[in-house]
Amino acid sequence: MKNNIIDGKEIAKNIRAGLAKEIEMIKEKYGKVPGLAVILVGHDPASHTYVSMKEKACKKIGMYSEVHRLSEDTTQDQIIELIEKLNKDDKIDGILVQLPLPKGINENIVNYKISPEKDVDGFHAINAGNLFLGEKSFVPCTPKGIIRLIKETGIEIEGKNAVVVGRSNIVGKPTAILLLNENATVKICHSRTRDLAKHVKEADILVSAVGKPEIIKGEMIKEGAVVIDAGTTKVDGKLVGDVEFDLAKDRASWITPVPGGVGPMTITMLLENTLEAFKKRWNLEP
Amino acid sequence: MKNNIIDGKEIAKNIRAGLAKEIEMIKEKYGKVPGLAVILVGHDPASHTYVSMKEKACKKIGMYSEVHRLSEDTTQDQIIELIEKLNKDDKIDGILVQLPLPKGINENIVNYKISPEKDVDGFHAINAGNLFLGEKSFVPCTPKGIIRLIKETGIEIEGKNAVVVGRSNIVGKPTAILLLNENATVKICHSRTRDLAKHVKEADILVSAVGKPEIIKGEMIKEGAVVIDAGTTKVDGKLVGDVEFDLAKDRASWITPVPGGVGPMTITMLLENTLEAFKKRWNLEP
Repeated sequence: MKNNIIDGKEIAKNIRAGLAKEIEMIKEKYGKVPGLAVILVGHDPASHTYVSMKEKACKKIGMYSEVHRLSEDTTQDQIIELIEKLNKDDKIDGILVQLPLPKGINENIVNYKISPEKDVDGFHAINAGNLFLGEKSFVPCTPKGIIRLIKETGIEIEGKNAVVVGRSNIVGKPTAILLLNENATVKICHSRTRDLAKHVKEADILVSAVGKPEIIKGEMIKEGAVVIDAGTTKVDGKLVGDVEFDLAKDRASWITPVPGGVGPMTITMLLENTLEAFKKRWNLEP
Repeated sequence: MKNNIIDGKEIAKNIRAGLAKEIEMIKEKYGKVPGLAVILVGHDPASHTYVSMKEKACKKIGMYSEVHRLSEDTTQDQIIELIEKLNKDDKIDGILVQLPLPKGINENIVNYKISPEKDVDGFHAINAGNLFLGEKSFVPCTPKGIIRLIKETGIEIEGKNAVVVGRSNIVGKPTAILLLNENATVKICHSRTRDLAKHVKEADILVSAVGKPEIIKGEMIKEGAVVIDAGTTKVDGKLVGDVEFDLAKDRASWITPVPGGVGPMTITMLLENTLEAFKKRWNLEP
């Protein structure tokens, strides 16, 4: 059996070890560490799990973290008040509001209150705009992780045909822009795309971020393609990707599994962005 | 000979007539009109021509306009000082800095000083970000004009294969996002794209914004495609597009000429954006 699996867990582990080492050195030299503040509103169980994972990940690499667990009936104004306090808090380099927020709260209005310098999720319009315009910005974590996984395979992105399936603001669209910045020819497909199979078959690099179990059939994959599966859906308590894995694996040159592919990279990139924010704020070399 | 030319001049004329009528009504009812301020630095002859065209276009539809013609040796700080004055000026709804600026002046720093509410060119990162995220924003004038021309043909954009050649911040990338918002499947090609002909042949809707004379050969055009040529290059004193027009015209269902296609729409959309800014500022219905 060919071993063509991109081991996101292992890659993430190595990156985190590097971050831990850097934070240790920074702590020794400057007597401080980067800090991440997470705001969690309500009682969505998946959100609670994610936030605990982020908290644990911070601790493990020596990063300061604080989680603000707020009740379901917290008002938008109260969240904004907290964000404004964290914007000024010297211990905090990154602020993230765990989505989804309870009904009645406007996620954009809330996210736009985060200082762009602390917007480590890269969801603020200023950061999205700078990403789009090719300027320096915080890059959303999942797309950043996806590009890192592709690069880990050693293939050259420039000049390749990349196809992104899904056009969310959080994954699909920023991934397309990042691939474009790497000089791929980029196509974006979505729910209104006709003949998805034909488009997917073109892809030297395929990124799927739809969240529909096995919407990408094995037979759609071009022989030798790099396949990144950023879709995750829970089916009978099991995490399932967008790609029909077993068949796709045979045709792909490289492929990410679900779980253990893109997932572990997302939090890792959050940690990296927070360290980056810290270094920028204290003017340390990048 | 089939008449499949998209007459940008005529379409622009009709839109401007509508704008003129609306401004007249607004003036009667509220006693004021929208105002555009243009900043022109240095002595680039093409820039002087463009700015004069914009000035004339404003006057013709009853819009207030003022042009600040500054000498080549104006400093960045002086430009920013002027922008800040215009940001507060109640007569002014839209501010635009004619590009290119003289060497040594950072166009981004200057543009980012324009209040996003008066950024009628849509070049500010906040507006670019909101466009990218699918939120309300000022849409850059040329891409906005391109979409309007496609819609004028009566074809449905949803589900079509759109190919954009060129990935500039001003035309290519925003056009791709707008086509995506219209539910097209969108591909972006550029200088590093391999086998351009193959990609162009897929296009039900083709937008070229490269600025290389006749880089798109007639034989690359898919039978029945809508072809929008946003490239203009001066060759022996004549304006030439990206598309080999005569041959492409035979295959296309609709095609824009150069000149007289996209060009006249750009200033028209600038006028429309300025009126939009005015209405937003005074809280008039859209």
